[in-house]
Amino acid sequence: MPFEFQIESTSNRARAGRLVTAHGEIETPVFMPVGTLASVKAVPQDTLEDLGIQILLGNTYHLYLRPGVETVRKLGGLHGFMSWPRAILTDSGGFQVFSLNELRKVTEDGVTFRSHLDGGSHFFSPESAMAAQIGLGADIIMAFDECTEFPADRARAQASMEMTLRWAERSKKYFDEHKHEVPWGTASGSPVERSSAAFDSGTTVVEEQSGLRPDGQPGAAVPTCFEQTQSLFGIVQGGMDLELRRESAERTIDIGFPGYAIGGLSVGEPRNLTREVVEATLDHLPADKPRYLMGVGTPEEIVEYSRLGVDMMDCVLPTRAARHGLLFTSEGRVSIKQARYAQDQGPLDPNCGCRVCQRYSRAYLRHLYASNEVLAQVLNTIHNLSFYLDTMRRVRHSIRLGEESRFF
Amino acid sequence: MPFEFQIESTSNRARAGRLVTAHGEIETPVFMPVGTLASVKAVPQDTLEDLGIQILLGNTYHLYLRPGVETVRKLGGLHGFMSWPRAILTDSGGFQVFSLNELRKVTEDGVTFRSHLDGGSHFFSPESAMAAQIGLGADIIMAFDECTEFPADRARAQASMEMTLRWAERSKKYFDEHKHEVPWGTASGSPVERSSAAFDSGTTVVEEQSGLRPDGQPGAAVPTCFEQTQSLFGIVQGGMDLELRRESAERTIDIGFPGYAIGGLSVGEPRNLTREVVEATLDHLPADKPRYLMGVGTPEEIVEYSRLGVDMMDCVLPTRAARHGLLFTSEGRVSIKQARYAQDQGPLDPNCGCRVCQRYSRAYLRHLYASNEVLAQVLNTIHNLSFYLDTMRRVRHSIRLGEESRFF
Repeated sequence: MPFEFQIESTSNRARAGRLVTAHGEIETPVFMPVGTLASVKAVPQDTLEDLGIQILLGNTYHLYLRPGVETVRKLGGLHGFMSWPRAILTDSGGFQVFSLNELRKVTEDGVTFRSHLDGGSHFFSPESAMAAQIGLGADIIMAFDECTEFPADRARAQASMEMTLRWAERSKKYFDEHKHEVPWGTASGSPVERSSAAFDSGTTVVEEQSGLRPDGQPGAAVPTCFEQTQSLFGIVQGGMDLELRRESAERTIDIGFPGYAIGGLSVGEPRNLTREVVEATLDHLPADKPRYLMGVGTPEEIVEYSRLGVDMMDCVLPTRAARHGLLFTSEGRVSIKQARYAQDQGPLDPNCGCRVCQRYSRAYLRHLYASNEVLAQVLNTIHNLSFYLDTMRRVRHSIRLGEESRFF
Repeated sequence: MPFEFQIESTSNRARAGRLVTAHGEIETPVFMPVGTLASVKAVPQDTLEDLGIQILLGNTYHLYLRPGVETVRKLGGLHGFMSWPRAILTDSGGFQVFSLNELRKVTEDGVTFRSHLDGGSHFFSPESAMAAQIGLGADIIMAFDECTEFPADRARAQASMEMTLRWAERSKKYFDEHKHEVPWGTASGSPVERSSAAFDSGTTVVEEQSGLRPDGQPGAAVPTCFEQTQSLFGIVQGGMDLELRRESAERTIDIGFPGYAIGGLSVGEPRNLTREVVEATLDHLPADKPRYLMGVGTPEEIVEYSRLGVDMMDCVLPTRAARHGLLFTSEGRVSIKQARYAQDQGPLDPNCGCRVCQRYSRAYLRHLYASNEVLAQVLNTIHNLSFYLDTMRRVRHSIRLGEESRFF
């Protein structure tokens, strides 16, 4: 199995390592930018590459509705469809369906929900969510779970957890029986091949058929994509009950996955409770498997959770905030819409080396935002992603140094 | 005077040459993309540079309202404000004010108009339009004119032309008295300096104080920006009356400008009439001065008018059409929203070398557009601009070959 997780350094509870996927290696702890509809909103893929992004997240629910799984599958999976040769993770759709609230109905079999686009009725089961994620072809996919609402009493949290466990078994069973259907390399003449040609001049692509490795290390190239499969991660639920979290972790581990996610958080609970649940859950996850905390977080939180031993995180915050003019800098938050920046000649963040901070003034960024120029979304998103990526680089560096650096 | 226009080749009526400005050379005939509010909508400046764009157009009316001339001036003029080291042309605001229709009142002194943003009352005169354009600091600026409406009878067209001539004299007088106020190089520590540092690694910037030349030719560098001024072009009006056009051309030439524009077209008249007026007007413009046809046109038109001897053109068409999903290709127009492209694995234009056609499929571009993703605007605009730029490269090449190529 090509999927591999190597821990290379530890510093107290924090770990630095790498995930090896069919679409390149990922240094951990990693923050994964969200590309909901096969696009990190407003940013071209070559810019994402330049930022050093090694893995993106796609949303199964959204992609299932538009452009549809079958279209993506025919075009070589998400990698081919969006011309992204590096790694991708998809969620199971469970969380997004959960967010639909009034538009969904949950049974043992699965979830009936109405599209937020046209109200059309759809159904996700563990099996159909796996089929969708296999068709989309991300490197890492997620078991179909029920995200327990907050607040929930113990009986409700337990019942929900039990169903998530049954769904995890069904997810794994379906995945094991169908994982060979992943579309990698099957779409000859697909955009994947063009993207590999366009990718990174100076890199020798040894294996034409694979053509997907971003690291430019011929020695690490895999013979073809056909031998590789996706990796299915399990999700720990259990509400805010620490005992249920322990039980959910242990029984999910019993089912057996190459990685484990902590789900059911960031659903309205106070932040200190989130941290308490994360910390308690991490205690029950195996040290040699990647740990993915879903839907987190602020720049401070991604540092904090890395410190606690989380390896993977994702959040719409840097991209969504950027589109609303909220920018993260080494000097704190900047709301670029404010009139105080109208004649500010300085860069957004004097300590940032991104192409936005190197070239444009706060005054210009403020003008673009105030004038509703599309370029505001482009530049703001590039900066926020750069800030998050730089933050994680420093976190990994600190762990590797084994020091109690300023990040810890 | 640093502004210079050299004709290097001719082919029948077509001319290929170069404009030399304080912010680099421009190969002509040239199509100038429109950056209304100090941004070519959705496209970062480094991408515009990569496309080979040598001159952008800014709209004085829009910039006067947002962020205001004084702000731009303080930040080093448009070049510094938007971090664009290459050449810029601004219109006078006359055409945009003309477009306001019910919101304007024209007198001998100037035009009173209401802002399209908040309804606030403003006034442009030849003098204030010059002051605004000097503050914005474009390399080429335009006399304040009245764009005659269509249709207009001869008396109306003549009266309007006469006022434009009087305004041209006032424009020139004010410009000659104030052109030393151009903000170039006066804003020390401004974003211009950062942009020069960020610009084109591998280029040696010989003159730190100027720091604005994109061509990387040390031999062509000017000592400082202080010795240079803007260039003011006159505008020929006269409605659709060829005799008035002749008179307007001759009397504008008598006033004396380093370049001449043909205004008052693309105001609702039929296309064959546009061409007739352009052709007749060109006959009366001096051969040794640049000729700028304002507001034109389609890919076919920019080729056609180059053939007739036009040196400069601008139009919102490639950028605006891109945002509406209308793409120009070597195989004709593509309306990327159409369902027929939903599973089309091919590139948008198989004959295009732009980063969009090299990397993405029609299916992906169709998905982005159909899903209202911001990236659709970014990628579509990059392609359309690339198509226009490539078209003009081929036009110039054809002229230099002196052949009756397929473009002519």
